[in-house]
Amino acid sequence: MSKPTPLSGFPEWLPPQRIIEQYAVDRIRRTFELNGFSPIETRAVEPLDQLLRKGETSQEVYVLRRLQADADDASDSGLGLHFDLTVPFARYVLENAGRLTFPFRRYQIQKAWRGERPQVGRYREFLQADIDVVDRDTLPFHYDVEMALVAADALAGLPLPPVRIRTNNRKICEGFYLGLGIPDPSAALRAVDKLDKIGPSGVVELLVATAGATEAQAKACLALGEITSADPGFAEQVTKLGVSDPMLDEGVAELVAVVEAAREHAKGVVVADLSIARGLDYYTGTVYEIALEGFGSSVGAGGRYDNLASAGDERYPGVGISIGITRLLGVLFGQDALAVSRHVPTCVLVALPAEESRGGANRTAAALRARGIPVEVSPSAAKFGKQIRYAERRGIPYVWFPGEPDTVKDIRSGEQVEAAASSWQPPEADLWPTVTGSP
Amino acid sequence: MSKPTPLSGFPEWLPPQRIIEQYAVDRIRRTFELNGFSPIETRAVEPLDQLLRKGETSQEVYVLRRLQADADDASDSGLGLHFDLTVPFARYVLENAGRLTFPFRRYQIQKAWRGERPQVGRYREFLQADIDVVDRDTLPFHYDVEMALVAADALAGLPLPPVRIRTNNRKICEGFYLGLGIPDPSAALRAVDKLDKIGPSGVVELLVATAGATEAQAKACLALGEITSADPGFAEQVTKLGVSDPMLDEGVAELVAVVEAAREHAKGVVVADLSIARGLDYYTGTVYEIALEGFGSSVGAGGRYDNLASAGDERYPGVGISIGITRLLGVLFGQDALAVSRHVPTCVLVALPAEESRGGANRTAAALRARGIPVEVSPSAAKFGKQIRYAERRGIPYVWFPGEPDTVKDIRSGEQVEAAASSWQPPEADLWPTVTGSP
Repeated sequence: MSKPTPLSGFPEWLPPQRIIEQYAVDRIRRTFELNGFSPIETRAVEPLDQLLRKGETSQEVYVLRRLQADADDASDSGLGLHFDLTVPFARYVLENAGRLTFPFRRYQIQKAWRGERPQVGRYREFLQADIDVVDRDTLPFHYDVEMALVAADALAGLPLPPVRIRTNNRKICEGFYLGLGIPDPSAALRAVDKLDKIGPSGVVELLVATAGATEAQAKACLALGEITSADPGFAEQVTKLGVSDPMLDEGVAELVAVVEAAREHAKGVVVADLSIARGLDYYTGTVYEIALEGFGSSVGAGGRYDNLASAGDERYPGVGISIGITRLLGVLFGQDALAVSRHVPTCVLVALPAEESRGGANRTAAALRARGIPVEVSPSAAKFGKQIRYAERRGIPYVWFPGEPDTVKDIRSGEQVEAAASSWQPPEADLWPTVTGSP
Repeated sequence: MSKPTPLSGFPEWLPPQRIIEQYAVDRIRRTFELNGFSPIETRAVEPLDQLLRKGETSQEVYVLRRLQADADDASDSGLGLHFDLTVPFARYVLENAGRLTFPFRRYQIQKAWRGERPQVGRYREFLQADIDVVDRDTLPFHYDVEMALVAADALAGLPLPPVRIRTNNRKICEGFYLGLGIPDPSAALRAVDKLDKIGPSGVVELLVATAGATEAQAKACLALGEITSADPGFAEQVTKLGVSDPMLDEGVAELVAVVEAAREHAKGVVVADLSIARGLDYYTGTVYEIALEGFGSSVGAGGRYDNLASAGDERYPGVGISIGITRLLGVLFGQDALAVSRHVPTCVLVALPAEESRGGANRTAAALRARGIPVEVSPSAAKFGKQIRYAERRGIPYVWFPGEPDTVKDIRSGEQVEAAASSWQPPEADLWPTVTGSP
């Protein structure tokens, strides 16, 4: 075989990066579980008709085919890889509704795939960590508050640059446009979403052309989008724009509740940002976008769907938030912003005086492992200097020397002490690899 | 949407089963890490030419295609989903050889896919947990011993029926056939592998027809395959068959070493079983097969490849073992052989006297979570009886009642005690869901 090369858009990490990724996943998962979210996983594939319900993503699906499928075997035709965890979750809820207890709180940490053209910075395979709460018929608003708090907690445990969860509410924008008298508020939501791409003057033109707005109305829409605050003070700024509408009032009250609860629980993390427009056309209330201060791109998003799933008379509203783990780590790895203390789980290398002593070394290793210490036995009875270099190259902090008595050496400091496998304990900080933010 | 139905071969678990699966994965992963294996994950896809290097699996590959691929865009053509974790690992080693430290010990716990015809009991998506050690040029034999011990440890931590790791060695079979004077030992390995399908008389016929064996030689091959023992005594039984060959001697010595080490470390788990023939055509020495006593099908396998990967002059021998987690759990779930103490991570439900007290309830929940206790706040300020039923339906053991002072009730026993969120601690066994083997 010739030397293989990476595939664009399919990131793979070396062991130190994977240790960091696992650390992040473990911390996020622990937060989700401490908050009572149950784990599920869904299969990687969904029927194509499920995946294509939102037209806009149709070009991003990977379709599957059995290499040796018979012409008359249609069993696998029409399957595609899921491109997010929301579509599969909605299907899972409908399929298992009779066996789940509602409100159903679930988390799901899985890969997703998008069949995009290869392009720098675009992932075609990526890891997502999602939480959602779903109920039958109605879902209380307090879950919209909770999602932001849980996401803030999940990310607070990681050595990251400051996290901002920017929130908005579709009812604020739609109510404001209605109150202004714009004829087509839905078209206005879509126009405002294009601000990053076409700039303020482009959005004004689009609002006039597609939503039936006057130029003055269009400028008011832009003014609304400039409002942002880390406290409920944004409400006053909205009032000053002089538009009144019951839907607007409801949206403002909801966003005030999110920001107020978050201010107590996770100061400075959750901010009201009325420029957030992404997803306003399909979310029905609160929307979230997660950003790292100093890094441009969003590393998570979510919101409320009043109709996450439905079948016949059954309707399941939901609210959720998704953390893009691959995107998050890709950004940070790209800036060398995370470091890990070693490249292997191993804390102790048991040295071998001679190959014949491997049985005894294995017993020493087993005794240490039984007390929760990660251990390897040396690959060979080479000179001790070579065995110590094996440890050094991997960042293993301790080398154990069998003897009468045994000794253990911290190869960073050179300190060597007598030790018994039945009782020696490394400092807590050395037991497992530790992850830190680089300076 | 109409109610969706399951897809044959793509298992999905309900939350209690997923909690059990996570428990199994966590325990297996911990054993791997205690033994100093580093984590990696590989992308889900490989180039088709990589996947099809072994002709026999070609019909089991799922091929990918971008739904909206342009006719002139070949960037994704020729990608398929991996059907195991060994092919991707071999490719990863070659691709990253310059950045890895050898011998390289890695574990990998990931899904794999086989594009099979739908069929009862066949998985088209399944979770595998693999360990391998790979080195440049040569790899000492002691790793063959280690693989069996680590696999035994990984499964010993789970509430399973007795585990048997059956081991054989290609050198025993091939050396025996050579010593017997069978003209085509490779054909003989393939013939013996068909014992389960075609029975002893079928194998004798095939040995005569394809390997050039006499009927007496063929019967000696069958006699070799009947030898099994939980101790090194199998070697004497081989000797009694009166065949001598240097490769046979080497194979027997290796298998004795595996069984002897395992007898000390994990008594009764690792047995010599000379009937194991699966994979003997591509493994080059030790082979493993993992079975649960009382359950027919294999739940894991592995062995030594003296040529796991190679490119140009570089050659990477490896030895590894793979635990089929989906198969393992599928078998046990099918017999209701595993149980979990509750359906959610939640240990405590904080009850709500009134919706206005949600802020205080959130503070109580946060104080408990900060000490590692999984907590939910009640979804509504319904009557306490209804809130207690919310906990009961999910198996949540404790309900917390805000008051002066707060109290906490074990809803299984009915016992209710005064408690403070800053100090109350549930018994260790109640903190997280616990998994047990059903009687």
